Amino acid sequence: MREVRIPTETMRPDPYPKSRKIYVKGRIHKDIRVAMREVELDDRHPETGEPIKVPLYDTSGPYTDPDVEINIHKGLPRIREKWILERGDVEQLPDYTSPYARARARDPHTAHIRFPNLHKPYRAKKGKRVTQMHYARQGIITPEMEYVAIRENQKLQELKKLLGPKWTRRHPGEPFGADIPEEITPEFVRQEVAAGRAIIPSNINHPESEPMIIGRNFKVKINANLGTSIVTSTIADEVKKAIWAAYWGADTIMDLSTGKYLWETREWIIRNSPVPVGTVPIYEALERVGGKPEELTWELFRDVLIEQAEQGVDYFTIHAGVRLAYIPKTIDRVTGIVSRGGSIIAKWMLAHHKENFLYTHFEEICEILSQYDVAISLGDGLRPGSIWDANDEAQFLELKTLGELTRIAWQYDVQVMIEGPGHIPMQLIKENVDKEIQECFTAPFYTLGPLVTDIAPGYDHIASAIGAAQIGWYGASMLCYVTPKEHLGLPNFEDVRQGVIAYKIAAHAADLAKGYAPAQIRDNLLSKARFEFRWNDQFNLSLDPFTARAYHDETLPSENAKVAHFCSMCGPKFCSMKISEDIFEYAKEMGLTEEDIERGMQEKAEEFRKMGGELYVRETVSKP
Amino acid sequence: MREVRIPTETMRPDPYPKSRKIYVKGRIHKDIRVAMREVELDDRHPETGEPIKVPLYDTSGPYTDPDVEINIHKGLPRIREKWILERGDVEQLPDYTSPYARARARDPHTAHIRFPNLHKPYRAKKGKRVTQMHYARQGIITPEMEYVAIRENQKLQELKKLLGPKWTRRHPGEPFGADIPEEITPEFVRQEVAAGRAIIPSNINHPESEPMIIGRNFKVKINANLGTSIVTSTIADEVKKAIWAAYWGADTIMDLSTGKYLWETREWIIRNSPVPVGTVPIYEALERVGGKPEELTWELFRDVLIEQAEQGVDYFTIHAGVRLAYIPKTIDRVTGIVSRGGSIIAKWMLAHHKENFLYTHFEEICEILSQYDVAISLGDGLRPGSIWDANDEAQFLELKTLGELTRIAWQYDVQVMIEGPGHIPMQLIKENVDKEIQECFTAPFYTLGPLVTDIAPGYDHIASAIGAAQIGWYGASMLCYVTPKEHLGLPNFEDVRQGVIAYKIAAHAADLAKGYAPAQIRDNLLSKARFEFRWNDQFNLSLDPFTARAYHDETLPSENAKVAHFCSMCGPKFCSMKISEDIFEYAKEMGLTEEDIERGMQEKAEEFRKMGGELYVRETVSKP
Repeated sequence: MREVRIPTETMRPDPYPKSRKIYVKGRIHKDIRVAMREVELDDRHPETGEPIKVPLYDTSGPYTDPDVEINIHKGLPRIREKWILERGDVEQLPDYTSPYARARARDPHTAHIRFPNLHKPYRAKKGKRVTQMHYARQGIITPEMEYVAIRENQKLQELKKLLGPKWTRRHPGEPFGADIPEEITPEFVRQEVAAGRAIIPSNINHPESEPMIIGRNFKVKINANLGTSIVTSTIADEVKKAIWAAYWGADTIMDLSTGKYLWETREWIIRNSPVPVGTVPIYEALERVGGKPEELTWELFRDVLIEQAEQGVDYFTIHAGVRLAYIPKTIDRVTGIVSRGGSIIAKWMLAHHKENFLYTHFEEICEILSQYDVAISLGDGLRPGSIWDANDEAQFLELKTLGELTRIAWQYDVQVMIEGPGHIPMQLIKENVDKEIQECFTAPFYTLGPLVTDIAPGYDHIASAIGAAQIGWYGASMLCYVTPKEHLGLPNFEDVRQGVIAYKIAAHAADLAKGYAPAQIRDNLLSKARFEFRWNDQFNLSLDPFTARAYHDETLPSENAKVAHFCSMCGPKFCSMKISEDIFEYAKEMGLTEEDIERGMQEKAEEFRKMGGELYVRETVSKP
Repeated sequence: MREVRIPTETMRPDPYPKSRKIYVKGRIHKDIRVAMREVELDDRHPETGEPIKVPLYDTSGPYTDPDVEINIHKGLPRIREKWILERGDVEQLPDYTSPYARARARDPHTAHIRFPNLHKPYRAKKGKRVTQMHYARQGIITPEMEYVAIRENQKLQELKKLLGPKWTRRHPGEPFGADIPEEITPEFVRQEVAAGRAIIPSNINHPESEPMIIGRNFKVKINANLGTSIVTSTIADEVKKAIWAAYWGADTIMDLSTGKYLWETREWIIRNSPVPVGTVPIYEALERVGGKPEELTWELFRDVLIEQAEQGVDYFTIHAGVRLAYIPKTIDRVTGIVSRGGSIIAKWMLAHHKENFLYTHFEEICEILSQYDVAISLGDGLRPGSIWDANDEAQFLELKTLGELTRIAWQYDVQVMIEGPGHIPMQLIKENVDKEIQECFTAPFYTLGPLVTDIAPGYDHIASAIGAAQIGWYGASMLCYVTPKEHLGLPNFEDVRQGVIAYKIAAHAADLAKGYAPAQIRDNLLSKARFEFRWNDQFNLSLDPFTARAYHDETLPSENAKVAHFCSMCGPKFCSMKISEDIFEYAKEMGLTEEDIERGMQEKAEEFRKMGGELYVRETVSKP
């Protein structure tokens, strides 16, 4: 693999080859500019002779737009701020609500590591709810909704016109539950958000993020976890990791940092993240009580929620479904409780003989979240941590409780997704989705993998991509990545790339299986490039053009080899694609034009087919 | 990843940690010694205090047995020769049948690269058939059959006794077609081979190979492709690659070399391969006519078959199902014909206006193969080469023909497997297995991947492992690996390792999903080690102990960290497994013994459960 870098001076990763940033304008909301990456191919349009340009879903944000000035000390452009203010339902607070945050923002000892361009937080006006679900239920199509509609469509209609039916054809999806319309309209987005089947994580205090949607009737999304544990890293490194993950294709990131300076680190990440940011607030709460779960209190937790909401966290993982009565059901498991948040809460409950305070205070949590539009990701604290523990009573009892909580959150117009496992053998994966749909009323399912075996430490990105692809196909909306270091240590930059790419593969495979049209077009065009020996186009349409090119160049480095009609795999004599070309030539000599073939051979071709192979061959070779 | 090496001097890869070679003796055939790798854990038996030893399926052959002398100039011990001779139905020929082979064996110009310990070939006595299928149909349980029964069982009954029910429990498999008995008997093996549902590739001229079985009612197997194209490599490197692939877990290898000295290279590989070796004979035939498909003849092809059969190739891929009439059906594909063998045959047919000579001479091919017990792997010359081309008419017409040929081969007692694709989106994978079962009468299905998307060049081992795991679960018997270099160049040693491990994951996941008991036990024991912070056991039970350890040691290299109750991923405060331990402690304090927990809490535990969590907690913490 070639080393792709983010120099600290510029914070811009290497540009993707033959790619440029394009912006598609909104129709309802004229000031919307939806970012996409457009790849220019060596392939040309047969009639116009123009190079073919393919728009790709792009999560990398302004870092790959040379026209946007990047200054991580200033933060990204606040593209959504105008939309938020125009709705007239928020107010800017004079200062942070929580005394802790006010102190952090002024502490002279941390001035050198503090983000220098702090903004005063927004909050809903008294009595208002500012969530996308709230607007959707009022029948309002927000700019965020139109943005994601355009983003999901990927200029499909234009592409179909440009490329013609052959190269935009697709296999019908097998929707286990999904029902993706070929063209996604802003109204469809609104309906899905209103019904709770999809969420648009979009804290009013993270106006830098480009709107995206998580739901089973849309492109499958992936999340990348970042953050340090005991190993320290510089804040620059943390920001870099966020940029890095988004650059490779992460649709959201979660900052799971534990340790010192969490507030400061989070501010840097959010201000510079073009994708929604999730957190697990109990981690910070635990840090604030010196790592002793029994000292946690609702009041502290509430403050942490408000602090993080005012920084701009887009979704919170909250383990409100781990109820006291479920703990004994984990005793005969192979691996007990493996969710960090779940085990912290379990310990608190055991120490206090009390029901989970996240459960008992759930309505207050929703009340807070509705004022910032923080989505809630209901954590599966009792998820299985091993193949044997999959689909057990503890897991499904908690899932039922998550459904109960979903209904409550929806009463507050709070957007909800449901977290899922973990470790599941293949034959038990579908039951998880079916049960989630039933118990949680089709709220988006957000799963960690699942790993389909436990015997592959060091390769768990692969063991889990297998399960992730399947669960995505069955209807999970977002897949939380797993890196090769899972179960062994903290991922480095290369691990993050490996994890993201493995999950882009899984998510894209699920998109194909569900029949998401733009996914199939990208496959078709890459395959066409492969068949036509356009090596550069093959690299540039791939998930990691740098690695594809580097692997090719290991044995055939010259530029001439980029147009050669073979590669080092089979060599020139044994190249099946070269021979297939010859067969196409025969067909053409027989009188079939390129056009006939392009049109799927509907006319002459049918005739030609009926004649059968023998005649075909005779006719063909009777010509000189 | 740590560099694992095979020094050329010894040809022994680094020994697997805490592992030793064990041999399990036969009952019917007393001289059988079935090789397994036994891993000794740090975990000890609760009663005897003895370290627990886990036998693993082992494909690495004598290279990992320090008691066997390795001399690649002499070749591996010929463990099956006695069994073959005792059947009394073979004769040793005075020399190779083919004049070409006789010349190769004596050519003074190639003496320096010729394997120095050539054996005279065996062949069936006149009128005899020496295939495992032939014996199975006669009701004979051969040593090969008993060997594979013991090998598949993995000492399951002994393990169950040693570990008790908790650690040997498994989820019921979801057999899409498979019906794996918990204990595999030699008689079951015989029945499966007789019915054509499984094959034991075992050329009488490759007595060095350790018997293995390919069939849907057994452990899923994987194949690794080796061999050079235009890039030259030394013969030592080729032998090394074969050893290397088997060391990581390849159940068979295919020598797909093209270029010079094919006969010599193949001899070195076979004599030193502990696993069955497959080839695609048309590649050599094509080399012998200067790379011009139109100059191929049946007579030349027949000679190549006999030469390779007399060297000991265990299975041949033969593209006999690519019929002339099917070629036009590939014209409107995205990627035409992508099988090398298929495209060569297609070109021959077009040049001669004739039906495929492999099809017209199929009975003669079977006649030859039955005299050496070469299994036939019916090639899918028209397999799809891109997601769009999956499951089209050309592909399924050929599959039907493969079924027709299967019936013919079985008339000659020739063992058959059916090759499958290739590139298939997830929702279309199952149809491939269903059709194969129907059209080819449950002959074992041997698939290449399939890749579930085309946009991941550089990561196609992952894109294809996703499809491979699924198709294995649905009923494919052997999965041909794909390396990260697929579509880009020739794999190097590291690519081979990556490909093999990705496919071990896929095959093992399929085994779990099908309910193959030894697979679940390995997962259970690794998870137990993980939960009990036995880091060394976790590494040593994994597919690649070297990489798992190296990843862990990147952040916590000290030996003390190997017993630490946390890792660098979450650190000590956030380790859920550590907290779960505490919860177990509470349970014990409450009066539950380790034994109760071990027994799945059947007695006290039930009571305990009924009391509910609240009481449980009260009871627990009322103690000091």
